[in-house]
Amino acid sequence: MDRETLEGMRRFFSPTHIAVVGASTKNHWFANVVKNARSIGFEGGIHPINPNAAEVAGIKAFPSIGELPDGLIDFGVIIVNAKLVLKSIEELVRKGIRNVLLLSSGYAELGGEGLSKQEELTRYCRENGVRLMGPNCLGFMNFSDRVSVFTGGAVQGELIPGQVAVLGQSGASTEIMVTKILAKRLGVSLYATTGNEAMLTAEDIMEYLVNDGRTRVITGFIETFRDIPRMKRIALEAAEKRVPIILIKIGRSEKAVQAASSHTGAMAGNDAVMEGFLRQHGIIRVDTVEELVETAGIFSRCRLPRGGGLCVCTVSGGLCGLYADLCSRYGIDLPRLSEKTTASLKAVLPDFAQPDNPLDVTGSGFSKGLSEVIRILLDDENIDIIAPFSFVPESKDDVMPQLFNETIIPYVHSSEKPIIPMAFREVNDYARGYYHEKGMHLLEHIEDGFKAISHLIGYARFQKRFAPEGG
Amino acid sequence: MDRETLEGMRRFFSPTHIAVVGASTKNHWFANVVKNARSIGFEGGIHPINPNAAEVAGIKAFPSIGELPDGLIDFGVIIVNAKLVLKSIEELVRKGIRNVLLLSSGYAELGGEGLSKQEELTRYCRENGVRLMGPNCLGFMNFSDRVSVFTGGAVQGELIPGQVAVLGQSGASTEIMVTKILAKRLGVSLYATTGNEAMLTAEDIMEYLVNDGRTRVITGFIETFRDIPRMKRIALEAAEKRVPIILIKIGRSEKAVQAASSHTGAMAGNDAVMEGFLRQHGIIRVDTVEELVETAGIFSRCRLPRGGGLCVCTVSGGLCGLYADLCSRYGIDLPRLSEKTTASLKAVLPDFAQPDNPLDVTGSGFSKGLSEVIRILLDDENIDIIAPFSFVPESKDDVMPQLFNETIIPYVHSSEKPIIPMAFREVNDYARGYYHEKGMHLLEHIEDGFKAISHLIGYARFQKRFAPEGG
Repeated sequence: MDRETLEGMRRFFSPTHIAVVGASTKNHWFANVVKNARSIGFEGGIHPINPNAAEVAGIKAFPSIGELPDGLIDFGVIIVNAKLVLKSIEELVRKGIRNVLLLSSGYAELGGEGLSKQEELTRYCRENGVRLMGPNCLGFMNFSDRVSVFTGGAVQGELIPGQVAVLGQSGASTEIMVTKILAKRLGVSLYATTGNEAMLTAEDIMEYLVNDGRTRVITGFIETFRDIPRMKRIALEAAEKRVPIILIKIGRSEKAVQAASSHTGAMAGNDAVMEGFLRQHGIIRVDTVEELVETAGIFSRCRLPRGGGLCVCTVSGGLCGLYADLCSRYGIDLPRLSEKTTASLKAVLPDFAQPDNPLDVTGSGFSKGLSEVIRILLDDENIDIIAPFSFVPESKDDVMPQLFNETIIPYVHSSEKPIIPMAFREVNDYARGYYHEKGMHLLEHIEDGFKAISHLIGYARFQKRFAPEGG
Repeated sequence: MDRETLEGMRRFFSPTHIAVVGASTKNHWFANVVKNARSIGFEGGIHPINPNAAEVAGIKAFPSIGELPDGLIDFGVIIVNAKLVLKSIEELVRKGIRNVLLLSSGYAELGGEGLSKQEELTRYCRENGVRLMGPNCLGFMNFSDRVSVFTGGAVQGELIPGQVAVLGQSGASTEIMVTKILAKRLGVSLYATTGNEAMLTAEDIMEYLVNDGRTRVITGFIETFRDIPRMKRIALEAAEKRVPIILIKIGRSEKAVQAASSHTGAMAGNDAVMEGFLRQHGIIRVDTVEELVETAGIFSRCRLPRGGGLCVCTVSGGLCGLYADLCSRYGIDLPRLSEKTTASLKAVLPDFAQPDNPLDVTGSGFSKGLSEVIRILLDDENIDIIAPFSFVPESKDDVMPQLFNETIIPYVHSSEKPIIPMAFREVNDYARGYYHEKGMHLLEHIEDGFKAISHLIGYARFQKRFAPEGG
């Protein structure tokens, strides 16, 4: 990505004064823009434009774009009927405003006339140096710089800045993604939606995220890539920088291809080809929002393992079988423990325990402390990742589980081998905050958790082939 | 199941006075027995036996079995070292106590000598008319009769009586199952663990559950069936009574087979044969506790659909694609909507909506009311099940989602077609209680939810082949 584009994108995502064309209280859009900006801590100005009101939602309004103060506004949001859109953009350009979010629908997603209307829009923006996001698009939240130009109303939870980026061609689906990511106390760097992509595409945003210096993990909800050769180059650059890309890529089924087309006018191609492309370029494909969140959590909190050998520790013989079946399903290797490991474990576990992998420390095993067990497993050279059960605290006063966890935290931070605790209980907000503070990712849903571990192993293997010397 | 056995089992599961041999405060077992009995509302007596204490945990103790009052006690729990077990059972028999739970381990799960010790135990019990649960077993909770003889300490949540039975060869795994079932506000009829099954087997309990007149859905965690021909007969009887059986059956992988063997001495056989057996007999196999809970929830709250056509309603075009891909993966048919349906939907949805299946009612669609949409879909003869999005209330004061849901509740109760709401948000305890009260099962995890719907459809098809006239 050339420097000028990078700077241009950076400016696009961090405006200081935002004009909202078509701001009204008849729908939720403007109220959402204001609410989201406040929630994220935006300190700049928001300027509604409405010919029929002196103020909108308590904020001073301008009757037209032409009457905006000169030189102040660096971003325009358009919420007017599709018929009035082009004219509004022209007026913004006359005011020197060339960064624009277009919420309105009525374009390529309708096909036919809508498509040609969208092409006209693209042409105009290209010719006049406008950077356009949309149409049919909710906008973005820039968590890192505390700026939001987002018209959606469904992102919930504390807007925690962090290193996970969320990119979406769909608005509502990604609002769910962001909400679930925040609920897991993962911080977000940038959340951007692209809608119909008349101009700014998922590829543009993806390339920016690989280069923005703030994103450690990229996640996305993708209906189609419009430029596969370019996506290939971006994937290679991401691989070089060791930034994993985790995507829901719609289009495994014909119904989904149809849905994507009527949603944002996207043309999803042959899925087998897409699958091969993603796999070859180290892009991680997930099937659900929940799997995506677990995977992003593991990637944002764990080192890449040296190999693919997992050891699972439980307090239940029954769960050993369940976990072994799931690992087998997701191609995760559970290596036999070395003789030395087995002997050492026998010394710290109750007499009747039979050390194996999955390891049943037995119901009373934990009373002798899990830290010894972890220490022994870390020394086993066949084991590259450890997934121990964890007693999940329900509140600050729930002391026992916290004491229990404290004993393994030093290993989590000092070891090269990822240690990924697993819950086997319901997990509440207190618990999520607790594990976050301790720098651990807690797996909540076991099947999604094993899928996520398999992605971590797969990506580590990809990196080994791609850059055998390490990044 | 003959009447005598049925009555015997009923008595086994509803004792009035329980003696606990080896009750002490050195471990958690006795305290757990007392705590669980209190939580479930047990009104009978619990009598610790301990030669060295006048009371245990504040309850009057007897120094030996021989000194128990005659004729009062109808159940014995044994928590002593394996060496003392047979002697204890003999003493119980001398007191006329023939219903026994054996917690102690040290039997078949160790192989060799342990195995022959277990065979000796079995022989003695058979010859002396003892009904033995265990060894290596946590016991049971009879929610229907408010009796518990359960030594585990990990079942959490309010012990709600209901119609879902839980049967497990593993203790800890099923404690998790029961906890998750209760968290979803599904009530339980009987929860029973069988451990090493020296005498009472999973088959025995399963047959009882099919006949107990209180169980609508049977769930289980199974490492092995010891008597396949008998299990076949039980499955047929369950099918006749239209009681679905939903099982986690360990043993897809070799590792899991090993784990089962060292856990309860179970020998899991060839999995492909098992898979065929289960499928042929309408037994539903699930892979995780979470999938089991969603499936049990749907079965306990929904009628069987006439056919397999699902219509999914969302507020997001992106989710339409995601859901279509998941339905395709789980073999769920999303039929094309009829022309009449499409025309009627166009009349109630916003202009830009394009009615299809999955149906995107669009972000503003719900404001015109989902009840009209549901009514129209119910009239479409290609549609047999409807899974609409649901706005999930967070608290009593969260009025909007509740008003929204109220409009569809009449259809949920009056329609022959199952209506299964889907959350796309985090769901808290308030929400779970709310949907429970309204008689709906809310799908929380979308992938598990679609798996569960596919099981409902599969079981309805099985029933149609099995009993074309309906049950």
